[in-house]
Amino acid sequence: MKRVYVIGAGMTKFGRHPDKTGRDLIIEAALETVDSVDRGIDLQKDVEASWIGYFTPELYEHQGQYGPITSDCLGLVPKPAWRTEIACASSSAAILTGFFAVRSGVFDLVLVGGIEKMTTLSTEGVTDALSIAADNIFELPAGITFPGIFALIAQAYFKKYNVTWEDLQAIPIKSHHNGTLNPKAQYQSEVLELGNKFGKKKGISFKDPMDFLKSPLNPTVAYPLRLFDCCPITDGASFLLFASGDVAKKYTDTPIEMAGVGNGTETLSLHDRPEMTSSRATIYASKMAYKMAGVRPKVIDCAEVHDCFSINEVIQIEDLGLVPRGEGIKAAKEGRTSLDGDIPINMDGGLKSKGHPVGATGAGMFCEIWKQLRGEAGKRQIPDAEIGMISNVGGSAASAGVFILRR
Amino acid sequence: MKRVYVIGAGMTKFGRHPDKTGRDLIIEAALETVDSVDRGIDLQKDVEASWIGYFTPELYEHQGQYGPITSDCLGLVPKPAWRTEIACASSSAAILTGFFAVRSGVFDLVLVGGIEKMTTLSTEGVTDALSIAADNIFELPAGITFPGIFALIAQAYFKKYNVTWEDLQAIPIKSHHNGTLNPKAQYQSEVLELGNKFGKKKGISFKDPMDFLKSPLNPTVAYPLRLFDCCPITDGASFLLFASGDVAKKYTDTPIEMAGVGNGTETLSLHDRPEMTSSRATIYASKMAYKMAGVRPKVIDCAEVHDCFSINEVIQIEDLGLVPRGEGIKAAKEGRTSLDGDIPINMDGGLKSKGHPVGATGAGMFCEIWKQLRGEAGKRQIPDAEIGMISNVGGSAASAGVFILRR
Repeated sequence: MKRVYVIGAGMTKFGRHPDKTGRDLIIEAALETVDSVDRGIDLQKDVEASWIGYFTPELYEHQGQYGPITSDCLGLVPKPAWRTEIACASSSAAILTGFFAVRSGVFDLVLVGGIEKMTTLSTEGVTDALSIAADNIFELPAGITFPGIFALIAQAYFKKYNVTWEDLQAIPIKSHHNGTLNPKAQYQSEVLELGNKFGKKKGISFKDPMDFLKSPLNPTVAYPLRLFDCCPITDGASFLLFASGDVAKKYTDTPIEMAGVGNGTETLSLHDRPEMTSSRATIYASKMAYKMAGVRPKVIDCAEVHDCFSINEVIQIEDLGLVPRGEGIKAAKEGRTSLDGDIPINMDGGLKSKGHPVGATGAGMFCEIWKQLRGEAGKRQIPDAEIGMISNVGGSAASAGVFILRR
Repeated sequence: MKRVYVIGAGMTKFGRHPDKTGRDLIIEAALETVDSVDRGIDLQKDVEASWIGYFTPELYEHQGQYGPITSDCLGLVPKPAWRTEIACASSSAAILTGFFAVRSGVFDLVLVGGIEKMTTLSTEGVTDALSIAADNIFELPAGITFPGIFALIAQAYFKKYNVTWEDLQAIPIKSHHNGTLNPKAQYQSEVLELGNKFGKKKGISFKDPMDFLKSPLNPTVAYPLRLFDCCPITDGASFLLFASGDVAKKYTDTPIEMAGVGNGTETLSLHDRPEMTSSRATIYASKMAYKMAGVRPKVIDCAEVHDCFSINEVIQIEDLGLVPRGEGIKAAKEGRTSLDGDIPINMDGGLKSKGHPVGATGAGMFCEIWKQLRGEAGKRQIPDAEIGMISNVGGSAASAGVFILRR
């Protein structure tokens, strides 16, 4: 079995790109990925296959076959390509496919990534498109969409661990702070700064982020979750280049090893699960990744985890074993998950501040860990980061992709 | 690199299943697959991961995440699963994923397959859903859908090789004949029998299939293609079980080897291609598969190829090198591709007669070759079939999956 290394990573700015099609985003992200390779790469000549995650091109762009489209717009025809989908973890599935393909020895150098072009639809249209990640037979007919699903999860968590919505606000405050250090983030402003921007129109100013977060300017989306507990609607694309051991050395002196990978599933409907404040998908995927990498949670230097809603960052770091059960919020409040904490989480601003172009999100997290392990994360660099983790989930964590990267 | 074997295969009847959801079809096909394993298998205990191809669940069932759904409804949670998509070759992508996963040594026993539940939509709705396999920027705005695309391809072929629509009718006549021998086929009637059934309502009877095929009862869909040049709209699901060499022996004395696999891409738009009567996707995928299997076209005993429209069976067998360029129709007219010919094609009735539940089609072809190589194809058995081929394409062959199986 061959070892698999990451030799390049790139992404578009995450945000609203009304002037760009999905194909434009793919080309932009792929070109940055090509440019990131230390000793250069000839995309058309060297890359043998590509896989792309895209959750719902059918609804956003009335378009299928994004595999051949990617192949076509990057000049890779007639090489292999297809699309992978597990909702918000769609690019994790592309990453896993590329990993299997290189590890199996069938290919030595592949391009993997993801994309989502969401702002073609209205907020209502996006809410409907996202809702198909939930159960169309048992959940959606009850009138629930994702803010409602995560609101139920948040309420279950608050009750179980005796914490409050006010406690949870440590998460978006941290995420927006980290976002200020990331030029690729959709929002590059502190919570307080955004609050005062919102307040200005109404002649209101805030001195403390909590004053804004508790104000009607941060409205309830689905009780207890408010606007700043929810990630935004985003366009974006992101890619990675994977190479087998022998080949990786040709392109870089600092290949980053794919030390462990994992994937898992959970029931699609919340009501079928043994536990609402945990996902067996993430637990299974992380156990698989830890086992393959031969490491335990305590060696992880930093992690990117899936905070589609603030409560999910908390559940993620608990499911991954990075903090004890019920202590995810406490860890954030104590600064343990901040950039200067002992287990920094979502250094790039997370989905909340960096944005969440669904199909591109997993690969986008990957870009951050790749930069961190190469010491190229600029103002948000974690000193001496050697082992990083990515955890990307689909829907209400009915699916999960977990990766451990090692310098 | 581990060798990969097929130890089980199963499918639903292909046809209209108004009383069944996608999940029902998945369970039915998976149970038949489990039952096909010679020495039995414990689905929940033994299967380590699953992958499923489904082209457009978003549009047919307002549902994403068919990976976790499959995992859930087969009792496989929390094991890995995701969905793969390359239009009508979506299950080929699941097959390739399972192949890479077992070959890489990450898993030893996996379930792969596909599904499409199409009859939830009207014919117009299905035509729209299928159209997203074509180019939404450059092709669809011109008003073309798939019958039109393949009609253009047919006209180009007729002109290039100086053949006629009348010549092409050898294909549907053969397909419907083979379908009479397949209890899983959507149509189990000869062309003449169906023609007389259509004619009965109008008091017309036919003595020769060509009389019917040329009559207004077989109307033009997109000139020169008529109704019987087009495959039907179908519901169905199909699965396969793959195991590594050591593990396969536990379950069967007749494992079928995945000797060669291939995948390829072509431009999405017809107008970007160097050639309309050939697909670089199929050519690339078949070269990859032949090379991996270490065989040449002449050793193939029988093949299942993608006849979404009659003209495509012709182009497929030429692209695969099974007959010389321009001789695909001649081969059918001379009976070379019939059950008793030297290179039998679409023994199970092909997409035309067996049906085309898009995401399940590749895996369904696989079932037929598996049965043929095990000598279990009943009345349509090719004597002493040892090496079989599958060629499944997406859209206008913008993508392709090609497989060579060996007894």
